Amino acid sequence: MAQLSEFLAVLEAALPADALLTDTADLRTYECDGLTGRRVVPAAVCLPESTEEVQAVVRACAAHRVPFVARGAGTGLSGGALPVAEGVVISLARMNRVLDVDLYSQRITVQPGVTNLQVTEAVAAHHLYYAPDPSSQQVCTIGGNVAENSGGAHCLKYGFTVNHVTGLTVVLPDGERIALGGASLESPGPDVIGVFVGSEGTLGIATEITLRLLPRPAAVVTQLAAFDSTDEAGAAVSAIVAARILPSAMEIMDRLTIEAAEAAVNAGYPEDSGAILIVELDGVAAQVEEDLAALDRICREHGAWEIRTAADAAERALLWKGRKSAFGAMGRVSQSYYVQDGVVPRTKLPQVLRRIAELEQEYGLRVGNVFHAGDGNLHPLVLYDEHVAGESERARELADAILVACIDAGGSLTGEHGIGTDKACAMPLMFGRDDLDVMQRLRRAFDPAGLANPGKLFPTPRLCGEVPGPYRQHPLERAGLAERL
Amino acid sequence: MAQLSEFLAVLEAALPADALLTDTADLRTYECDGLTGRRVVPAAVCLPESTEEVQAVVRACAAHRVPFVARGAGTGLSGGALPVAEGVVISLARMNRVLDVDLYSQRITVQPGVTNLQVTEAVAAHHLYYAPDPSSQQVCTIGGNVAENSGGAHCLKYGFTVNHVTGLTVVLPDGERIALGGASLESPGPDVIGVFVGSEGTLGIATEITLRLLPRPAAVVTQLAAFDSTDEAGAAVSAIVAARILPSAMEIMDRLTIEAAEAAVNAGYPEDSGAILIVELDGVAAQVEEDLAALDRICREHGAWEIRTAADAAERALLWKGRKSAFGAMGRVSQSYYVQDGVVPRTKLPQVLRRIAELEQEYGLRVGNVFHAGDGNLHPLVLYDEHVAGESERARELADAILVACIDAGGSLTGEHGIGTDKACAMPLMFGRDDLDVMQRLRRAFDPAGLANPGKLFPTPRLCGEVPGPYRQHPLERAGLAERL
Repeated sequence: MAQLSEFLAVLEAALPADALLTDTADLRTYECDGLTGRRVVPAAVCLPESTEEVQAVVRACAAHRVPFVARGAGTGLSGGALPVAEGVVISLARMNRVLDVDLYSQRITVQPGVTNLQVTEAVAAHHLYYAPDPSSQQVCTIGGNVAENSGGAHCLKYGFTVNHVTGLTVVLPDGERIALGGASLESPGPDVIGVFVGSEGTLGIATEITLRLLPRPAAVVTQLAAFDSTDEAGAAVSAIVAARILPSAMEIMDRLTIEAAEAAVNAGYPEDSGAILIVELDGVAAQVEEDLAALDRICREHGAWEIRTAADAAERALLWKGRKSAFGAMGRVSQSYYVQDGVVPRTKLPQVLRRIAELEQEYGLRVGNVFHAGDGNLHPLVLYDEHVAGESERARELADAILVACIDAGGSLTGEHGIGTDKACAMPLMFGRDDLDVMQRLRRAFDPAGLANPGKLFPTPRLCGEVPGPYRQHPLERAGLAERL
Repeated sequence: MAQLSEFLAVLEAALPADALLTDTADLRTYECDGLTGRRVVPAAVCLPESTEEVQAVVRACAAHRVPFVARGAGTGLSGGALPVAEGVVISLARMNRVLDVDLYSQRITVQPGVTNLQVTEAVAAHHLYYAPDPSSQQVCTIGGNVAENSGGAHCLKYGFTVNHVTGLTVVLPDGERIALGGASLESPGPDVIGVFVGSEGTLGIATEITLRLLPRPAAVVTQLAAFDSTDEAGAAVSAIVAARILPSAMEIMDRLTIEAAEAAVNAGYPEDSGAILIVELDGVAAQVEEDLAALDRICREHGAWEIRTAADAAERALLWKGRKSAFGAMGRVSQSYYVQDGVVPRTKLPQVLRRIAELEQEYGLRVGNVFHAGDGNLHPLVLYDEHVAGESERARELADAILVACIDAGGSLTGEHGIGTDKACAMPLMFGRDDLDVMQRLRRAFDPAGLANPGKLFPTPRLCGEVPGPYRQHPLERAGLAERL
């Protein structure tokens, strides 16, 4: 380990006194992110405070061929910040300053450790806000949002993180820094910003991020409709889309999730609902009113038997309360749960929900369904008890089988949680060999040595040596999934 | 030339009878695009009709190491489709079919040779349209729009081509085909679509393109305001933005351009205007009305002495008539003209316009100014007479000097016409060595042999051996521009 101590000496010299952690007790607090099922203790953790310090750490890594993993708040659900045992975690927690606010151009520049909600708070007095709103927005950081191209309930209308990043300062895997974009959304040549956003830390580390801000909409109304079944609620969503109404959010919760939310936070959702649909409209008052009337009619036509409308912030918060606490609330009805994240074309929602019901029977486990219905992003919550032998493995297999059902329906592996370590081995279900090869070429163009967040996003023989459960039965797998790895 | 004849034989075998041109007379019709000042006759022209035929041609090029240049309608203004003498032009003119319309998802899939306007025409009956609208939309093709990431008068509100492409089938420079994206705007991993859109043919050829369609806005109103000077009109634009009104278009024309437009098409613009501002609002009727009232007030406060409002399609067409014909109209007042395309931060418009006025004096040439004022995209028209010795060179130098002024003001080399061959040597004015290196790495990842549209987008010693005129005087050049090439 002479090499390691030499490497650590370089890091120590490059960083402030308390910015290098090597004690095992300290390192253990970084062993996983929100995907708690996988844990790896890193060799060291660095806590740089500036772009220059990040460069110094990355240069040392490049010189010693040490892999590095950038980490924000560690709230990611796909293991995108899972450490590498022989590698360094570069925590950006101390890079948490707002660097610039340009009210005229409606842009803000922040360091990566600023939380999503802090961005909006920094400009709230000027009636501006930052649109992408992951459920974890109080704690998750902008750096992580950029790495994962995060969405949220309102991305139906406002798009994902990539639609809101106009400039990046990036430290490349060789330690060089580059500046991409700026205040303008238009720059000549290939869209290098688009390459970085969503690359899950595999191309470098963003150390300054310029974001587009939006004016607060003049009017916001939230409506809750109670149905007998998710099929009915789903049909209402299809009809809303067909009527060309573009709500800022459309969320469905099923019976099990409603029960859990009621038990946990007493949200006051209508009793005996088979499903509830929460729709939020924003924009000009006249348009919101017109759309609200149409919404009401469409929901009733599709079987809604109770409709509540919230017109002020307090009432809205009440309607959202159960939805926003839905994941955590599952702790009231189940020992443990696994959150899946998949996408299906909106028209295939009923088909995939029926398949999930079959899988519940097949695996003898319960699944709660919460989803961003507008963009077909499902979040099935697979309930299990880790103290029952084999149940956590069965839960995982069931969650995998749901993902296969999403892909079979023409959907996607992830709506917003990312691929990370969790789904890297499932990438060949969605992408052909040539598609993956293009992504790998892009990656190697920036990181020929493969030091930036290895083992994430892309399937590798080391990671996927044994193809996990349900993927084995998938037609694509039979067509040679294993050999594509 | 044994090698060439062998190569041509391969092409001949791979293509239909009339799809390979080698006669010099035929080849001459492809010697330039809209940048008519540079002309190169290619060795051959291919006219494939399918993705498979494009693959066959590109595979032959890869095997024989022959450079290829994809071409749409040839309307590009930056020489992006300039042929290579020892290379092949791959014309996509025969790939002009609409492949699929998905009204539910509001998506259309087309071949690259479909014109921009045909996309809207294909879905007009369903009250849908395709938003990006280059002035050449009646003739320019979607393939070229993708290559150049084209904009248009309405990209202020609706964004550029990259914001509307959801799927691509691409033939890579080795002849392989890949499918990127699809109906969804969200896909895991780096945004490879964003890399292709705007890469000016240097990464491959798009052969199927899926585009997002938008519902026609319920209300559209166009207003024309006459001012005494472009300074006043520019100040009005700043005030409109500061009031957080988001028009779908804001266009300014100066006195010289107005005179030319009047002479050519009799647009009926107010006589003696020093500048006119055309603003278009669209959306919900109530919001449009509210914004229109604010607009009227702001324009009058900033010196507008006549305001006309068009509320139906015929009246709107009349207001737009002069603007849309402005480039062509210059032929009435000048033997020849060169169209520059640069971007400045909106707040710097007056400063750059004053600099342009100085340059007119300095070079003894007239410059007409038309600009997409909302996003600071200038289109100065430099008038000259090619029959006067040295005047075309002086015009070119003046146009270059305007670009330098844009960059000095913190702007960009191009708003929508692209870099092409025209501005490749100017890229180091805007991008540092590391930035250009990252773009080159991206390019080499896809095209290690450098066969796809060589000599475009990136500065090369061959192309830029002598750094053109005004760039020599630029501070960045003194800091080592030449050695960066």
